[in-house]
Amino acid sequence: MNYKFSDKFVRLKPSAIREIFKSLGTPGSISFAAGNPNPESFPVAEMKRFADEIFENEPVAALQYGITEGYGPLRELITARLKRVYNIGAPDDDLIIVTGGQQGIELSCKVMCGEGDVVLCENPSFIGALNAFRSLGAKLAGVPLDGDGINLEALEQALKDTPRAKLLYTIPTFQNPAGITTSLEKRRAVLGLAKKYDILILEDNPYGDLRFSGKDVPTYKSMDAEGRVIYCGSFSKILSSGMRIGFLCANKALIAKTVVAKQVEDVHTNCLFQMICAKYLSECDLDAHIAGIRELYRKKAGLMLDALDRFMPREVSFTRPEGGIFLWCTLPDGVPLGEFVRRAGDKNVFVVPGTAFTADPDEPSQSFRLNYSMPTDEEIVKGIKILAEIAKDMIAKA
Amino acid sequence: MNYKFSDKFVRLKPSAIREIFKSLGTPGSISFAAGNPNPESFPVAEMKRFADEIFENEPVAALQYGITEGYGPLRELITARLKRVYNIGAPDDDLIIVTGGQQGIELSCKVMCGEGDVVLCENPSFIGALNAFRSLGAKLAGVPLDGDGINLEALEQALKDTPRAKLLYTIPTFQNPAGITTSLEKRRAVLGLAKKYDILILEDNPYGDLRFSGKDVPTYKSMDAEGRVIYCGSFSKILSSGMRIGFLCANKALIAKTVVAKQVEDVHTNCLFQMICAKYLSECDLDAHIAGIRELYRKKAGLMLDALDRFMPREVSFTRPEGGIFLWCTLPDGVPLGEFVRRAGDKNVFVVPGTAFTADPDEPSQSFRLNYSMPTDEEIVKGIKILAEIAKDMIAKA
Repeated sequence: MNYKFSDKFVRLKPSAIREIFKSLGTPGSISFAAGNPNPESFPVAEMKRFADEIFENEPVAALQYGITEGYGPLRELITARLKRVYNIGAPDDDLIIVTGGQQGIELSCKVMCGEGDVVLCENPSFIGALNAFRSLGAKLAGVPLDGDGINLEALEQALKDTPRAKLLYTIPTFQNPAGITTSLEKRRAVLGLAKKYDILILEDNPYGDLRFSGKDVPTYKSMDAEGRVIYCGSFSKILSSGMRIGFLCANKALIAKTVVAKQVEDVHTNCLFQMICAKYLSECDLDAHIAGIRELYRKKAGLMLDALDRFMPREVSFTRPEGGIFLWCTLPDGVPLGEFVRRAGDKNVFVVPGTAFTADPDEPSQSFRLNYSMPTDEEIVKGIKILAEIAKDMIAKA
Repeated sequence: MNYKFSDKFVRLKPSAIREIFKSLGTPGSISFAAGNPNPESFPVAEMKRFADEIFENEPVAALQYGITEGYGPLRELITARLKRVYNIGAPDDDLIIVTGGQQGIELSCKVMCGEGDVVLCENPSFIGALNAFRSLGAKLAGVPLDGDGINLEALEQALKDTPRAKLLYTIPTFQNPAGITTSLEKRRAVLGLAKKYDILILEDNPYGDLRFSGKDVPTYKSMDAEGRVIYCGSFSKILSSGMRIGFLCANKALIAKTVVAKQVEDVHTNCLFQMICAKYLSECDLDAHIAGIRELYRKKAGLMLDALDRFMPREVSFTRPEGGIFLWCTLPDGVPLGEFVRRAGDKNVFVVPGTAFTADPDEPSQSFRLNYSMPTDEEIVKGIKILAEIAKDMIAKA
């Protein structure tokens, strides 16, 4: 039969990245397209032991329905860690466990934005968030990124032009896809604009723990005196992405509504991994574990930057991230991005074109995203060489 | 600050049942309020062993991102089981793993219903589904239930009166909260009406495996020749509710849209439990396991019905379920339900008032739901005696 889908879903397509991810079986292929953590970052032995202990001593708590807010001990441990590491947590704040940061992003928009309300976002930004907003009938208004974060003039103009702006979605630290970090000065200015135009900030910080050079910049949430910031965190990049554990920290009135929204979405996040996560936080040294991941990614990012410096023609520019898992390359004008990505794919090297990250899906792009957390060291050097050869050839012909 | 929530969330409240569930710590309290499976139904030893094997042999598959559609082997095993047990599965059908049946229900509405579209539902019905529809801006139109399923005349009238009706949400087998099963004749007639008025049927079947008397009735999906039925299944009542594994089986065009919707909600369902579930389905005898649960619930339902027959005044009527985990009691007119539920609570016996299940939240009710899967045998007899005493007293005074 002929289905009449909700108008929100008629045009919405699966994420280009996740579609690439599915087709990555080919032997010898090199993927810079993923957003996956390196499997070396999974503390397998500890998780195995904790799962075993839980099935032995508390099986019913792991297998029975839990409460929507999340497993109590885990909520307390995360709250304490947020305070200690990020100085996050006002007396009026509360915390809910969600099924990965993705759910935290989606629920925040669901609770705040009615049909036709506008979410401002960095342009480019994380496709999963943009599609979540679209799926809820929110409109997107993209604001260009500079090297030190969102462009302030463009942001203020967008706020003036958009009376129904409700939320600014931002990944201030090691942004996806651009890899850049918003400066402290800019964060203060953005908070000021949010106050002036009375919008909320949704701060998505899945990579914040993964700094391997430079100095930490305070989160928006740590500077939030009035409950204007919703902080979305995740264990996907530091413990496991498959376990689907994230959290939101925000004013308790906001969290109370989010509990209602989550209840009707999946009742609660799976209990076993919440319990494993709590055991990990209370019995292991997460900071030491994270230090190991930082070192791994520092080496891989360094290797990729070194290969880019050595092989890539100087007409191709790229960001130099201080953490996270992505960098962002830009081809010179006149070199068609689509053809570049296709030719790379023909040589079994996969990158994500910038067009996958634009607020307006029809907006052209000259950039592509490179991931360095997943490929082997050998793949990084070999893959960048291949990309550089294609770029050279296309620049010569442009 | 003063938050302006989405209009869909301004009035939406947490589920009354899940709120009761949270306050159930009191020692000596007897809860007939839950919708939980009995912990004896969890195959703890097998799950422990499978988790151990997975962490030993395939840790990366369990801890890395997976694909949105779900773990391939599990999808195949469920597809085969649906065909074998329920004769479900047309050549054009596909299957997606979801984070519990709740997500399957929510996603189905999200994909099909735009703002203001109408979901028809049995009245009373499952509060979690009704709130999911409300949270998406869909309107609800409740259709009264008879003892053998939805009232056909009222359904046809509602279809005539509701040009924007898009979906009929039904729990045809061991309905929640009423415990009744829709007859085969009625299912055929409902399918005919769905075709005549061109709406889809969302068949929610979390209890279908739990028949302990009477004969199986074919599912809507098994009689669906044209892709009009979305079938929602769950492992919550037969393996574990905390693991959050459910599935949708529907025409592949519908499933393709559902994949997009799920991707932006939680990327994918947690991998470890999908793998545990697949191991259980391939290495254990799920049918034998289910037979054990049926026997347990047959005894508990029998005990509760026996206590109701013996102690409850005859003015109170109740359903006699042939499976599932609920029965539905109705007080005579003139006995105020709110006061009855409150007095029961004062005696530490918890039931859910029928007002929690009505399509129109302001609609009055004379009924309450009793769960028999969770309480001990002793609690069932003791609790029903207490409820009967209160009913007697209130009837005498009415």
